[in-house]
Amino acid sequence: MASNKKRVWLFHEGNAKLRDLLGGKGANLAEMTNIGLPVPPGFTITTEVCNEYLKGGKKLPAGLVDEVNKALAYVEKQMGKKLGDPRNPLLVSVRSGAKFSMPGMMDTILNLGLNDQTAQTIIEATGNERFVWDGYRRFVMMFSDVVLGVEKEEFEHIFTQMKKRLGAKLDTDVDAANMKKLTVLFKSHLKKRLGREFPSDAVEQLQLSICAVFNSWDNDRAKEYRKKEKISEDLGTAVNVQTMVFGNMGADSGTGVAFTRNPATGENAMFGEYLMNAQGEDVVAGVRTPVDINELAKQNPEIYKQFEEVCKILEDHYREVQDIEFTIEKGRLFILQCRSGKRTGPAAVKIAVDLVKEKRITREEAILRVPAEQLEQCLHPRLKDRPKEKVIAKGMNAGPGAAVGMIVLDSATSARRGKAGAGEKVLLVRRQTNPDDLKGMLSSQGVLTAEGGRTSHAALVARQFGIPTICGCAEISIDEKNRTMTTRSGAVLHEGDWITIDGTEGIVYTGKLATEPPTISGEFKEFMTWADKYRRLKVRTNADTPEQAAEALNWGAQGIGLCRTEHMFLGDRLPKVQKLILADSDGERKKALDHLLPLQRGDFIGIFKTMGELPVTIRLIDPPMHEFLIDIEQKTREDVMVLRLTKPGSKVLDQKEKLLQKIEEHHESNPMLGLRGCRLSIVFPQIVEMQIAAIIGAACQVKKTGGNPQVEIMIPLVGIVTELRLLKEQLDMVAQATMKAEGVKVTYSFGTMIEVPRAALTAAEIAQEAAFFSFGTNDLTQLTYGISRDDAGRFLPIYIDKKILPEDPTESIDRSGVGKLMKICVDDARAVNPKIKLGICGEHGGDPRSVVFCHQIGLDYVSCSPRRVPVARLAAAQANLESTFERDK
Amino acid sequence: MASNKKRVWLFHEGNAKLRDLLGGKGANLAEMTNIGLPVPPGFTITTEVCNEYLKGGKKLPAGLVDEVNKALAYVEKQMGKKLGDPRNPLLVSVRSGAKFSMPGMMDTILNLGLNDQTAQTIIEATGNERFVWDGYRRFVMMFSDVVLGVEKEEFEHIFTQMKKRLGAKLDTDVDAANMKKLTVLFKSHLKKRLGREFPSDAVEQLQLSICAVFNSWDNDRAKEYRKKEKISEDLGTAVNVQTMVFGNMGADSGTGVAFTRNPATGENAMFGEYLMNAQGEDVVAGVRTPVDINELAKQNPEIYKQFEEVCKILEDHYREVQDIEFTIEKGRLFILQCRSGKRTGPAAVKIAVDLVKEKRITREEAILRVPAEQLEQCLHPRLKDRPKEKVIAKGMNAGPGAAVGMIVLDSATSARRGKAGAGEKVLLVRRQTNPDDLKGMLSSQGVLTAEGGRTSHAALVARQFGIPTICGCAEISIDEKNRTMTTRSGAVLHEGDWITIDGTEGIVYTGKLATEPPTISGEFKEFMTWADKYRRLKVRTNADTPEQAAEALNWGAQGIGLCRTEHMFLGDRLPKVQKLILADSDGERKKALDHLLPLQRGDFIGIFKTMGELPVTIRLIDPPMHEFLIDIEQKTREDVMVLRLTKPGSKVLDQKEKLLQKIEEHHESNPMLGLRGCRLSIVFPQIVEMQIAAIIGAACQVKKTGGNPQVEIMIPLVGIVTELRLLKEQLDMVAQATMKAEGVKVTYSFGTMIEVPRAALTAAEIAQEAAFFSFGTNDLTQLTYGISRDDAGRFLPIYIDKKILPEDPTESIDRSGVGKLMKICVDDARAVNPKIKLGICGEHGGDPRSVVFCHQIGLDYVSCSPRRVPVARLAAAQANLESTFERDK
Repeated sequence: MASNKKRVWLFHEGNAKLRDLLGGKGANLAEMTNIGLPVPPGFTITTEVCNEYLKGGKKLPAGLVDEVNKALAYVEKQMGKKLGDPRNPLLVSVRSGAKFSMPGMMDTILNLGLNDQTAQTIIEATGNERFVWDGYRRFVMMFSDVVLGVEKEEFEHIFTQMKKRLGAKLDTDVDAANMKKLTVLFKSHLKKRLGREFPSDAVEQLQLSICAVFNSWDNDRAKEYRKKEKISEDLGTAVNVQTMVFGNMGADSGTGVAFTRNPATGENAMFGEYLMNAQGEDVVAGVRTPVDINELAKQNPEIYKQFEEVCKILEDHYREVQDIEFTIEKGRLFILQCRSGKRTGPAAVKIAVDLVKEKRITREEAILRVPAEQLEQCLHPRLKDRPKEKVIAKGMNAGPGAAVGMIVLDSATSARRGKAGAGEKVLLVRRQTNPDDLKGMLSSQGVLTAEGGRTSHAALVARQFGIPTICGCAEISIDEKNRTMTTRSGAVLHEGDWITIDGTEGIVYTGKLATEPPTISGEFKEFMTWADKYRRLKVRTNADTPEQAAEALNWGAQGIGLCRTEHMFLGDRLPKVQKLILADSDGERKKALDHLLPLQRGDFIGIFKTMGELPVTIRLIDPPMHEFLIDIEQKTREDVMVLRLTKPGSKVLDQKEKLLQKIEEHHESNPMLGLRGCRLSIVFPQIVEMQIAAIIGAACQVKKTGGNPQVEIMIPLVGIVTELRLLKEQLDMVAQATMKAEGVKVTYSFGTMIEVPRAALTAAEIAQEAAFFSFGTNDLTQLTYGISRDDAGRFLPIYIDKKILPEDPTESIDRSGVGKLMKICVDDARAVNPKIKLGICGEHGGDPRSVVFCHQIGLDYVSCSPRRVPVARLAAAQANLESTFERDK
Repeated sequence: MASNKKRVWLFHEGNAKLRDLLGGKGANLAEMTNIGLPVPPGFTITTEVCNEYLKGGKKLPAGLVDEVNKALAYVEKQMGKKLGDPRNPLLVSVRSGAKFSMPGMMDTILNLGLNDQTAQTIIEATGNERFVWDGYRRFVMMFSDVVLGVEKEEFEHIFTQMKKRLGAKLDTDVDAANMKKLTVLFKSHLKKRLGREFPSDAVEQLQLSICAVFNSWDNDRAKEYRKKEKISEDLGTAVNVQTMVFGNMGADSGTGVAFTRNPATGENAMFGEYLMNAQGEDVVAGVRTPVDINELAKQNPEIYKQFEEVCKILEDHYREVQDIEFTIEKGRLFILQCRSGKRTGPAAVKIAVDLVKEKRITREEAILRVPAEQLEQCLHPRLKDRPKEKVIAKGMNAGPGAAVGMIVLDSATSARRGKAGAGEKVLLVRRQTNPDDLKGMLSSQGVLTAEGGRTSHAALVARQFGIPTICGCAEISIDEKNRTMTTRSGAVLHEGDWITIDGTEGIVYTGKLATEPPTISGEFKEFMTWADKYRRLKVRTNADTPEQAAEALNWGAQGIGLCRTEHMFLGDRLPKVQKLILADSDGERKKALDHLLPLQRGDFIGIFKTMGELPVTIRLIDPPMHEFLIDIEQKTREDVMVLRLTKPGSKVLDQKEKLLQKIEEHHESNPMLGLRGCRLSIVFPQIVEMQIAAIIGAACQVKKTGGNPQVEIMIPLVGIVTELRLLKEQLDMVAQATMKAEGVKVTYSFGTMIEVPRAALTAAEIAQEAAFFSFGTNDLTQLTYGISRDDAGRFLPIYIDKKILPEDPTESIDRSGVGKLMKICVDDARAVNPKIKLGICGEHGGDPRSVVFCHQIGLDYVSCSPRRVPVARLAAAQANLESTFERDK
């Protein structure tokens, strides 16, 4: 079934707006071609073809080959060369290019079109035999790896053996004859492994390569990357076929990568690296340590000037920092790729602010330019002190922020023990990283590599995910076998030893250094001030202690949206709480409560003092009673077992058995659906009455000393309006009595958490009794789906894998299900009580996409953990600017 | 705060339509007054006053007393007498009267206005000293009991003592002098108990009595009754103050109660009883066994004729069976009350059909006249045989149907051991019953009383709640002390012995007799045929076996709406299922499945054969795996404990420990929210694949032998459209393969149960993949409320008690929450898939109010347990007739 749509686009036929169709790389190659930059000619096969190919059992759609040939013929005519023509051969590259950049995740083939005949012709034309055989052996290796599935490592092993034999240290030490020999060795290795010849037909090479690039959309590391980056699986990749230009044609050739501004810090200075006499992959993969781009100005001022000009044209054209790949072929500059430069959170902020000051973008655009998610990177801790005596090495400051962790020397270990695994603090130390290391990097506190520069894979990932990173730290050497890292001074550190890295400065310290949170200042502060002007949503924080409250205030929180009181029943207070729960008489119960009251009052005084006149929403006790009895149950059960053996029939055994039985009475089949939240308060009102006495008592105390707390009391788990009505009446009496006893009046109101589906459905009733609603989207999501997070481990990963769910709904609000319920609730509540305050305090409150949704349905505020407050502030501003930033996943 | 509303209504000012305001009794007294029947004059205080009184701290609203006095003055003028006037005293009764009749639940005061002076005046006027003192002592007793809280029993004890002393057997054996003495004794007893005099001021008596009647709305037995009858707590009772007429003024006086038709069977013949020289309470309370109403024709033909005429007028006027209280005072007939006659289910059906045939009501009216809930009574089992040698007594057939149970001699025991308690089959045997026995009666299979007639309390309750009952069985005597029941022949039965009663015939048998289900025939059949013509909803049944399916077909089921397959994994198949769950390899798993497949196919063949071409909805396996492992877990745990002691370190211990660990891996924190339903099928598809092979294989087999099964396969617990899509694709392949192997095509479709809130919210997506939806309102209710039935026991009763919930939402659909969700689901599903079949298979499918709701939101069918099928059929018809029957609770 041939499609009528145009499936193959020559570069000059496209433009930057066609990212969906041509991928980021293809769209930008087209745009650059059209604005007159020196782009080697070529064409792009669309992402739609990729999807058709993958869905259609991995067959190229009918008619596509004809279209490719037609485009190829155009390029051949332009270049005056022909693919596979033994007399005048064209060489091309075949590269992936998806809508969103996925650096290093998919495959690339270079030097396509080489075979024994064309190689010979090019040798004759260029007179550079070594260059041709080097290119040929690379092509054989790449093609075998990517297209035919014989791993690159096998070929590199052959090369290493040869270099050993020859006593060669670097690739460049191997001469033309040996490169030719290597090409033959590679081809015979391939034949041995697969029983087939290396395909010498250039058209066959091209078709197989196009398929291989499409296939690479579905490889494991690409999938892993998309999962982490929340990129849709349905986008597909385009394929770019482009005339080869060569950076390895001698001393007047070279290749490099540069950013128009510093992507780690945002500084307005060209940032990048190049290598003379090398192909692009040598730079990107970080195999050879390249030279700083500024060296080019000395080495080749003319080319440097040309490149500077290109940078200016591109930044002006796109009004955005560009990440540019270039090649110098025999003194001539070619631009191979440009794209928005990925940058760290802090750099994104600085660049956005600078572009505004340069009057190139508006403040609104600046706000939309910074991914809210990245903002947390601006909050990376910094080193408290920088003790010189602990410095063990210096390297390139590739990813800012301080990180403290135990050395691990491979990514598998990092993944197993790090954040996503056992939750230990590890720090990944590698000679260099490659795309396979992604998972391990994401699991570690920071990354330290011995090789590779500022644009190496490690640096790229560091910037994108905000991982504190030092690259190219030549002062360390790694012994993977003995699991050690040795510094230049000869100090040997073992895997598991603690080190600290300062990614901002590029310095490695031994041991665990103290860190401190940063402050919001400079461009960050200015940027957040702008953001705040554009948002309608208020941002509060979830904080349970005065310390957390203070931190959140530092990040700009406008109140507490959720103060959980459970922790106030734990620690050394737990035995008292257990006495309370297991009390036999009202007397015992009262005694336990009398102990707890002054302690709780103290907790609240601290919080009210910290928050000043900002609102503080306190949730009354919520969890099922059994949660407080787990340790005592264990202990009692053991006691009973021992006593049965040692003192059968004794009175003490009898007592313990009765106690155990009493504890077991608190067991529930489905504790999430049992006696908790307001149900508990209705059955055993004493605890919440004590809490109200403590809260209002604390507010009175603070008011007497000049404060003015704004107290919002949140009754959890309401599903029936009468629950709220009854408790409100009952607790209001306690509040009034407390104020009377204290002789002060304080401001307080009652509201509820919307976490039971029925609460949302009957909002029109409940809103009449509530001053505020706060969506508890953690429980609301679980109940709406009928899925408990504790039990989902046995099927949710399978659901994500099989694409039954695009993502875990506890990460971002499920708009069609939970979101629909929220919308019903908001509309119904406002209709009967226009003054009601509506917010969210589930973990979604700090997720940018969820914040956008909360804005859209008209909430008044979101509440999130302290460190997510700036993220939420920015997301709220972006939502209000009708974010064009939000990706259409 | 005085209300502007009319709060006190003279009888002639009201009418039958004012039931809300005047209560049923008041409204009918007004109506009868206006149609010219001989009603003693009086007035009614409205139900609104009751609510105002109860909410306002039990104080009569300001101004009310004036209004009462005004109405009283009118009555006094009409009667030419005055309340409390020592020379010409008026006596009145003060009675309760709510919107819905609550017989015997609230309080009544008779003979009000008596004191030493007025008594003397009436003696002089009537010359009947005994009558006056009898009335006076009754008044003192009633007033003390109802108004002052000194229990009636204390006074009856005094009377009994006196009778013993006098050697009197009956009350009538006590002469005037002793009645006077008794009055004095009563008053001094009261003074001793309360330290206050009996109030002699008639106006004070009246006011206190009005308050007492209002208070009685809130007594425990009234509350219990309303809970059972689902009568709203907010209605309140009216108070009727009415001129006394006396049935105890001698041989030419009397009192009685009669139905215009037989309320037990529906037969068109006057049905009732009377007592000469008695007050009404003697008949109602069943203290003296009264005389059949037909005797009156002989005893006093003129009055009988008059009364017959009244019956005719009233039945004509109301076009409905009437329950009439009358009094004959010195040969003059007075009508004291009329109301719709409460009747049994079978009687309701017969009367409705007869009234249609008499052309007094339409078929539509007939349909609306029979409470659907009562229809299950038509399905009471009947005795299979009636062995004469086992007959031990005969009595009055007060409540039709056969009942088999163990004798219990008091209501507390019945409640504890019966239906609502330990679930044993008990049969309550009492001398007579009173309102306090209600709970015990409802807990027993049937009721047998030694005293009391067809209109006694026991008979009334029996008819209303459809309890097989025999009354006035004078052939037995009960010894509560020795816990025995003795028959006339001298046989002694002990509490706990089994007896059988046939309430239709009035015969008591010894032992457990076999019963059989009835058939639908005669008027019942005709009535159901009419009902079926008026309904739009189809009625299916929930049946898991061919036997259940056959029973439901007998009751008119139009298909199976829910066939659960869980039971097919139990019994002697359980060990195989356990092997399947705990299998270590695919081989072991397959072996276990191969064992189960033919067994399951057999189950389905039986069901398909029974159901013919009617649709059969089969739900695939649903419960969490751990439910199948409970017994093996217990056993293995014990084995491990023993082996640890006897064979520590042995291989067998090791194996058992591993097995235990494997079983424990199936534990979940919240199994309701865990790995079950379709989640299980996605993670372990083998089980459902086997089920599909069995279902489709069975259908093919049946088709080959001439059948044509209509198979609907229901995938449970879907909350995400992709769950359904994935499983449908996967299972469809199995179905196709099975049909191919069998060489037959059968009709089948896939659908889902809507039981997770998200399924309802995203119906627009899910409906595109489903041929049908069936609301699983059990789980849907639990998830919408966030309440698990298993755990609700610790708070739901308190919720009902505190009126946080009007009733358990698992009984009748919660319209504002769960119902709203259902409505959203229906509308969204139909919008995208107009052909989708929509039904309900939760327990609500057999609840008449829920059926009405299902009709209103446009479902296609309801499915319920076999015995609820006729109930649902009628409810569906009533819903379609825009039921005016449905009570506005």
